[in-house]
Amino acid sequence: MTTNDAVRLLEQFRAGAVTRAQVLRAFRAPAVSNLGFARVDLDRGLRKGFPEVIFGEGKTPAQVVAIARQIWRHEGRVLVTRTTPGHARAMKRAFPRAVHHENARCITLERTPLPKRGGPITVLCAGTTDLPVAEEAAVTAQIMGNRVERVYDVGVAGLHRLLGSLEAIQNAHVIIAVAGMEGALPSVVAGLVSRPVIAVPTSVGYGASLGGLAALLAMLNSCASGVTVVNIDNGFGAGYAASQINALSRDTA
Amino acid sequence: MTTNDAVRLLEQFRAGAVTRAQVLRAFRAPAVSNLGFARVDLDRGLRKGFPEVIFGEGKTPAQVVAIARQIWRHEGRVLVTRTTPGHARAMKRAFPRAVHHENARCITLERTPLPKRGGPITVLCAGTTDLPVAEEAAVTAQIMGNRVERVYDVGVAGLHRLLGSLEAIQNAHVIIAVAGMEGALPSVVAGLVSRPVIAVPTSVGYGASLGGLAALLAMLNSCASGVTVVNIDNGFGAGYAASQINALSRDTA
Amino acid sequence: MTTNDAVRLLEQFRAGAVTRAQVLRAFRAPAVSNLGFARVDLDRGLRKGFPEVIFGEGKTPAQVVAIARQIWRHEGRVLVTRTTPGHARAMKRAFPRAVHHENARCITLERTPLPKRGGPITVLCAGTTDLPVAEEAAVTAQIMGNRVERVYDVGVAGLHRLLGSLEAIQNAHVIIAVAGMEGALPSVVAGLVSRPVIAVPTSVGYGASLGGLAALLAMLNSCASGVTVVNIDNGFGAGYAASQINALSRDTA
Amino acid sequence: MTTNDAVRLLEQFRAGAVTRAQVLRAFRAPAVSNLGFARVDLDRGLRKGFPEVIFGEGKTPAQVVAIARQIWRHEGRVLVTRTTPGHARAMKRAFPRAVHHENARCITLERTPLPKRGGPITVLCAGTTDLPVAEEAAVTAQIMGNRVERVYDVGVAGLHRLLGSLEAIQNAHVIIAVAGMEGALPSVVAGLVSRPVIAVPTSVGYGASLGGLAALLAMLNSCASGVTVVNIDNGFGAGYAASQINALSRDTA
Amino acid sequence: MTTNDAVRLLEQFRAGAVTRAQVLRAFRAPAVSNLGFARVDLDRGLRKGFPEVIFGEGKTPAQVVAIARQIWRHEGRVLVTRTTPGHARAMKRAFPRAVHHENARCITLERTPLPKRGGPITVLCAGTTDLPVAEEAAVTAQIMGNRVERVYDVGVAGLHRLLGSLEAIQNAHVIIAVAGMEGALPSVVAGLVSRPVIAVPTSVGYGASLGGLAALLAMLNSCASGVTVVNIDNGFGAGYAASQINALSRDTA
Amino acid sequence: MTTNDAVRLLEQFRAGAVTRAQVLRAFRAPAVSNLGFARVDLDRGLRKGFPEVIFGEGKTPAQVVAIARQIWRHEGRVLVTRTTPGHARAMKRAFPRAVHHENARCITLERTPLPKRGGPITVLCAGTTDLPVAEEAAVTAQIMGNRVERVYDVGVAGLHRLLGSLEAIQNAHVIIAVAGMEGALPSVVAGLVSRPVIAVPTSVGYGASLGGLAALLAMLNSCASGVTVVNIDNGFGAGYAASQINALSRDTA
Amino acid sequence: MTTNDAVRLLEQFRAGAVTRAQVLRAFRAPAVSNLGFARVDLDRGLRKGFPEVIFGEGKTPAQVVAIARQIWRHEGRVLVTRTTPGHARAMKRAFPRAVHHENARCITLERTPLPKRGGPITVLCAGTTDLPVAEEAAVTAQIMGNRVERVYDVGVAGLHRLLGSLEAIQNAHVIIAVAGMEGALPSVVAGLVSRPVIAVPTSVGYGASLGGLAALLAMLNSCASGVTVVNIDNGFGAGYAASQINALSRDTA
Amino acid sequence: MTTNDAVRLLEQFRAGAVTRAQVLRAFRAPAVSNLGFARVDLDRGLRKGFPEVIFGEGKTPAQVVAIARQIWRHEGRVLVTRTTPGHARAMKRAFPRAVHHENARCITLERTPLPKRGGPITVLCAGTTDLPVAEEAAVTAQIMGNRVERVYDVGVAGLHRLLGSLEAIQNAHVIIAVAGMEGALPSVVAGLVSRPVIAVPTSVGYGASLGGLAALLAMLNSCASGVTVVNIDNGFGAGYAASQINALSRDTA
Repeated sequence: MTTNDAVRLLEQFRAGAVTRAQVLRAFRAPAVSNLGFARVDLDRGLRKGFPEVIFGEGKTPAQVVAIARQIWRHEGRVLVTRTTPGHARAMKRAFPRAVHHENARCITLERTPLPKRGGPITVLCAGTTDLPVAEEAAVTAQIMGNRVERVYDVGVAGLHRLLGSLEAIQNAHVIIAVAGMEGALPSVVAGLVSRPVIAVPTSVGYGASLGGLAALLAMLNSCASGVTVVNIDNGFGAGYAASQINALSRDTA
Repeated sequence: MTTNDAVRLLEQFRAGAVTRAQVLRAFRAPAVSNLGFARVDLDRGLRKGFPEVIFGEGKTPAQVVAIARQIWRHEGRVLVTRTTPGHARAMKRAFPRAVHHENARCITLERTPLPKRGGPITVLCAGTTDLPVAEEAAVTAQIMGNRVERVYDVGVAGLHRLLGSLEAIQNAHVIIAVAGMEGALPSVVAGLVSRPVIAVPTSVGYGASLGGLAALLAMLNSCASGVTVVNIDNGFGAGYAASQINALSRDTA
Repeated sequence: MTTNDAVRLLEQFRAGAVTRAQVLRAFRAPAVSNLGFARVDLDRGLRKGFPEVIFGEGKTPAQVVAIARQIWRHEGRVLVTRTTPGHARAMKRAFPRAVHHENARCITLERTPLPKRGGPITVLCAGTTDLPVAEEAAVTAQIMGNRVERVYDVGVAGLHRLLGSLEAIQNAHVIIAVAGMEGALPSVVAGLVSRPVIAVPTSVGYGASLGGLAALLAMLNSCASGVTVVNIDNGFGAGYAASQINALSRDTA
Repeated sequence: MTTNDAVRLLEQFRAGAVTRAQVLRAFRAPAVSNLGFARVDLDRGLRKGFPEVIFGEGKTPAQVVAIARQIWRHEGRVLVTRTTPGHARAMKRAFPRAVHHENARCITLERTPLPKRGGPITVLCAGTTDLPVAEEAAVTAQIMGNRVERVYDVGVAGLHRLLGSLEAIQNAHVIIAVAGMEGALPSVVAGLVSRPVIAVPTSVGYGASLGGLAALLAMLNSCASGVTVVNIDNGFGAGYAASQINALSRDTA
Repeated sequence: MTTNDAVRLLEQFRAGAVTRAQVLRAFRAPAVSNLGFARVDLDRGLRKGFPEVIFGEGKTPAQVVAIARQIWRHEGRVLVTRTTPGHARAMKRAFPRAVHHENARCITLERTPLPKRGGPITVLCAGTTDLPVAEEAAVTAQIMGNRVERVYDVGVAGLHRLLGSLEAIQNAHVIIAVAGMEGALPSVVAGLVSRPVIAVPTSVGYGASLGGLAALLAMLNSCASGVTVVNIDNGFGAGYAASQINALSRDTA
Repeated sequence: MTTNDAVRLLEQFRAGAVTRAQVLRAFRAPAVSNLGFARVDLDRGLRKGFPEVIFGEGKTPAQVVAIARQIWRHEGRVLVTRTTPGHARAMKRAFPRAVHHENARCITLERTPLPKRGGPITVLCAGTTDLPVAEEAAVTAQIMGNRVERVYDVGVAGLHRLLGSLEAIQNAHVIIAVAGMEGALPSVVAGLVSRPVIAVPTSVGYGASLGGLAALLAMLNSCASGVTVVNIDNGFGAGYAASQINALSRDTA
Repeated sequence: MTTNDAVRLLEQFRAGAVTRAQVLRAFRAPAVSNLGFARVDLDRGLRKGFPEVIFGEGKTPAQVVAIARQIWRHEGRVLVTRTTPGHARAMKRAFPRAVHHENARCITLERTPLPKRGGPITVLCAGTTDLPVAEEAAVTAQIMGNRVERVYDVGVAGLHRLLGSLEAIQNAHVIIAVAGMEGALPSVVAGLVSRPVIAVPTSVGYGASLGGLAALLAMLNSCASGVTVVNIDNGFGAGYAASQINALSRDTA
Repeated sequence: MTTNDAVRLLEQFRAGAVTRAQVLRAFRAPAVSNLGFARVDLDRGLRKGFPEVIFGEGKTPAQVVAIARQIWRHEGRVLVTRTTPGHARAMKRAFPRAVHHENARCITLERTPLPKRGGPITVLCAGTTDLPVAEEAAVTAQIMGNRVERVYDVGVAGLHRLLGSLEAIQNAHVIIAVAGMEGALPSVVAGLVSRPVIAVPTSVGYGASLGGLAALLAMLNSCASGVTVVNIDNGFGAGYAASQINALSRDTA
């Protein structure tokens, strides 16, 4: 709410057009549904451009379904990430049209898909084992209304595989580069394009990969300009940020 | 070079319109000026949308000036970051129109400023001591052709200072949130807006701040969606990425 | 035992009113019940204001029951934390009136509840998955004789949820703020109140959350004054310290 | 501002008793003095019970004096921590009655000292080299209106030194225990008293002390209940929290 | 073998008093039994005062038995540490007189116990959950021919429990102090005695105990002189070193 | 492709001896077989001297078999590392002549073994539990066409075991030294020979071994010249590098 | 004071042979000299077998001299470690007979040297740059009444240097092995002798030596039995512990 | 010395063909010159193929010159690394023909250069600030008798710079790849060649580069086969290992 909005609201209140309760709620009280164990943010679609997303890990199937119900009713669009098979079964039972993206460990549910906006978001991954994280990013970006290109298994140890996909990469509006181990993919890619590159380290590796810390540090220290980084295995975060960036190109044109 | 370009180039070669050397260079040899201690990338303006930026730290003033000369000649626009007073003196001597941004520790040099494009980029910082990093981000974004708003000293311990600047924050196309210590600013900000938020941890703090690692980790673990992160104290990287994002909104409209 | 006590005791001994053994025990030997695998501290209620608390983790159900028996006999009030279902079954069998707080993973047992003293202790948590830690804090504070308010799922990414509970927060005598991920909640809360804030990092998160270290470091580096911190997932410690603080307000009035 | 306050304010506005601007400011705009490089929080005395404290590190003497001037004018009481000799000289020049606590690296300035409230706060330190941190805690607690007892060089390697001061320790309302190296002092102390113990790790040590991390970790893992911890070398934070706790005993009696 | 020994040996060889094979063995070839997957050191009893000890972890029951057989044949005394129930069953089958120390996770086997030598070795542990590590130390010291006193559950949070056992502690020739969490026990003990104290950190704890690193660091930084440290959970190493120290007092008298 | 190759190719193209497509492929498009989840590099045998190796961990048996089929068809030689029993069963079913090296957790498959070249590669390991990593190195070096000597269980705590194998060590062309715990073996070995020593830290150990980090750090800090290091447990990498080194002695003679 | 002592003391008190004050002091009050900034422990010679040692680092020359004066008066023997040249000058001025051991950064002062007791303590160091730490250990052991052998620059990369000193090593009663970098020396030495080996990691090294952590970890993970470890660069601690061990052999004979 | 050698030597001794001293020396006593603070290894040229190298850091100029004198006399070839200007002045004074390689921080001294052997060693570095480390590698490899090619400033962010030097890279017998920041260079290079690649992480970077740890971890986790790694900034180690590898190709042909 901008100051102008506030001024207008107060004048309407003085004029009797809105009630005192409405003023208070506008200033103070965004719509929140308190389930006891969770307060579902029902205005997030308005505020952030997409409804609250349910992080499945550590929640019981019943909790996930209860939260999903609230969001479904108000927003008509639900994304659950980091799901277990138990979550999937419970969601399918509660919402027959729910879609389980197994590779991505996500569940989606929507009345009508959002229209696709902006240019393509290209999701790259370095190796086969990085695939679940890449898919989480791709599924997130898709449900948020973006066209998504997938270019998988293009790690830097076989540079020709990457260079052979250069066209798809250079056509992208935003690039998501997913890699474990030494995490070099985003640096090489960012040197080849002028579009924003979001780097996603994965926990793929062993020994001194330290559960993905090696890749994370490499990406944070990228010698290529324009790389930003999200948490280890955070495909969702990358897909979400890419969508925000892509939305900018359409919304602000 | 797309496949189409390559096909055309080869046909021109067969037809005698271009020489063998031209083909080879096109396939192999982007313009690079080898100074011995450095290979200056003279095509970067073309490839990345902005000339190579000189990272001053660890380079002698003479090296900085030599590289700057190459870039100045080909691109007419120079940015040097992490400069010492010695760098500044040498650059001013070599290029009288060079501008030294002391707070930001940057030197800029340009024939004519780039036209401003896209919406405003807003740079927030949590405390007074985060200012140099915030300024590095701001100066970078400005020379790359963006309008920049500065909102400083709005750390989360005094929430009203942040909420009092909400309008500037919500008008931004891209937000850069700079913070040391517990690094909570980007999480709070990203919860309030739908635009991309780039988080910059700083090395401000002591003890368990571990030279900025505490803030870095906090930002990577942000519970707010849409936050991406750059290296500790990397104001330049944040400004560069923000400019790439902002450019997208204009270029692709 | 103060010096005055000691002087008096010695004079009583010289006068024959107390035996030599009594003097020795008074100087040297607080009541300890040695079970071989454990020495139960039977004076702790006197010394610390609350009987020894049994940390269940790593103890067999039989060991827990044996220790509980000693404490029950001398103090009439037992708290077991970090319990497994096996602990719960064994305790219920041994003490039919034992109460199992499943969410909090605690078992309590008391003849008569302590009278409530001091003002309310408010327990905040940032997300649904932080709930078990928050409950451990709440159950601990309750059995120690405090009124407890719970305000759950008020993480900083949806600031309005927190601000909507401001009244409960500002009425508290002591605040316990539980959060995982980036651990920003205590900083924001401590900026809004003048009461002591005890921050509890949780191991909720993934990747660079490093099992709660990210939240711990953030809390230790809080830019808000008056925040103190306990170990990761240490809801018990926070509840205990909050109770000591709250007791001070009553005891010393 | 509670909901009741808000209701009343809105009715006064409708009744014409307060202006629209007043409503807006009440909802939105706490008193902040924007110096460009800093936003001084002029309501903090009201909100937190003590004016904003100036953290000297990383600020120029001129910046410290400018901020101090704002606080002095509105609050009549200034505390600057982590000061350099340069800060001290500038402050003494600007405010002749400023007091420089060299050991504590603090500067204080007050029209009239606050009346002493609550019971004594006892500051313990383990070794001679922990003294500056202990003094920072003591000076902070004093200017905030507390009586402070100092018991120094009572590390656990010579237990009798600690036990010899038991009376002072047991009389305290709040205990601040400062220690570097293995950081065992708070555990031993908290086992002996029923009052809150705030542990302050210091960076005193070498090798595997890791700049105070060893002491910090030890304190977080204390086997004694009721210990809370602040950042390494954060004497100020401990003094501040202790004062908040002590205030509780008086305010709420 | 000193140079004098070598000179003498060579002269004996020239004189025909010893064979060529004897010379070679003396210079080169301690008795080693090569099992392919292991080279059992059959001279270790001679060289180190106790036969090679079998570390069970990561070895199959068959491997443990095969190595034990070699040592049993040459030395008549076997110690296996870090055993699984599978190891125990296989050893009992192969050697009916093998003894399984369940708490200590050790198996011992000896024709005739070694005569007890030196003074007592006292094993202290801070809490009940440290018991397995303490027992590993105790069993090791016993089979190596030492009298062992056990004083368990004497953590520093209840100082009187420790002080109540002062006599046993002060009578020891060597003290082994086992503790997890904040690892303060060795510091307090070493301040009370003049005998060598071997500190054993355990992995008991959670959160910031970092699997025992907190206790390890605390012990390495002990402010009490004369503390040496072994690896986390390394009860065997502590028992072994204590025995070597104790042997010194007898051997060299 | 060298510049000379490129010149020749272009002239052949101009002369019509090769097609345009051939030129493009030569410049751009190494043979890659895109399986969707993986891009198999079919030119690697040519480029690196050995076909792409399949890292089994994190791949399903079906994925492993599918990739193996591609490589088998083009190269006639397959190595799969980090296999599970499930991988082994699937591979045996698909390729009856596949060999499962259980200790090494590898599967090999070849039409005809490569002729042995260069001198012997000697694989040392410090303890019995390091054996799987040592075997992975040995199996890798063997299938790449090297003679391999194994010298196992020669840790530095029993120096005579190592010195007793000096001949095998000094005859090696390349030495692979595998060790966990304190990782001292490579330093001692490299002091005794003039051949390259590749050090492989293993995750064998407990407590402060930190999953092999202690051994890794020790090896990186070796005081002996000529030691290079690979990742923790990376027997494959060591065998591969040793083979490249050994190949050099033959190829370039 | 044993229980017997206490019984006797109390009977003497009842009989009037000792005063009440004497009883209280005996139970409570060891001799401590409170200098304000330090409490000098004047009974430590009695309790620990050697007077309190002054750790110079972080103390002013005046503080060091003041503490030394107290100890000198009561004990006639002073050791100051980690001294600066300023400490040395101040001590020489105050105590003309003070000896400054420059390499060891120690100052010693004694009326008459203690008689040498026990067998020799042998101090080994791996390289020239480890010398100051080795010397601190040697000087400490000497002033505590031990004969000390020095064997320097015998790192494991040149094994013959170590083996060439085997006689001195095998004659030692206690061995102190000082090493930086990979810290392998104690493991190799402990495999060759049956006496206690105290390992001292040093901060010698660079890069991944992490200021001595690599050596520390290696020593804690030693595969040789009987190694105990002290803090990085803690030559004093090693010398002290070695002396306690050596004392045992004489005292208890 | 093999067993056969030993047998033969002993028979020659019995036959009087060799003296007793010769036998002893053969078995025991490599030539070592004990300077007190250092034991110079005078047989290392024989044993390792190159004389002992002097690590300058932490040694006084006088110590360096004294050790250099010993090596110069016996070997006629001296390499000093990590030198200060003080070392250089002292060496030039003592040995007028000493050469100071300023960039590499090395001093060399040789009667006659070694004949060049094997193929070229190519030293790559990613950025200008990595140059000193790359030069240390190059100077080391040169004095050890190798031809060295330098290809500098070819970081992966400008891939064409690297690909433009492909010929020099593919001609190398051994490749040394030096990089700081994200350390991606070795992975990319190793994917392009079949020769051994030695990776050298440098401490170039800031923030989350952690003094070179980020690059080190990336290199250890390289997805390209055949990469081995040395310590951070250890150009010398890389040059030495590369020379050993190169020597193999000549010696064993």
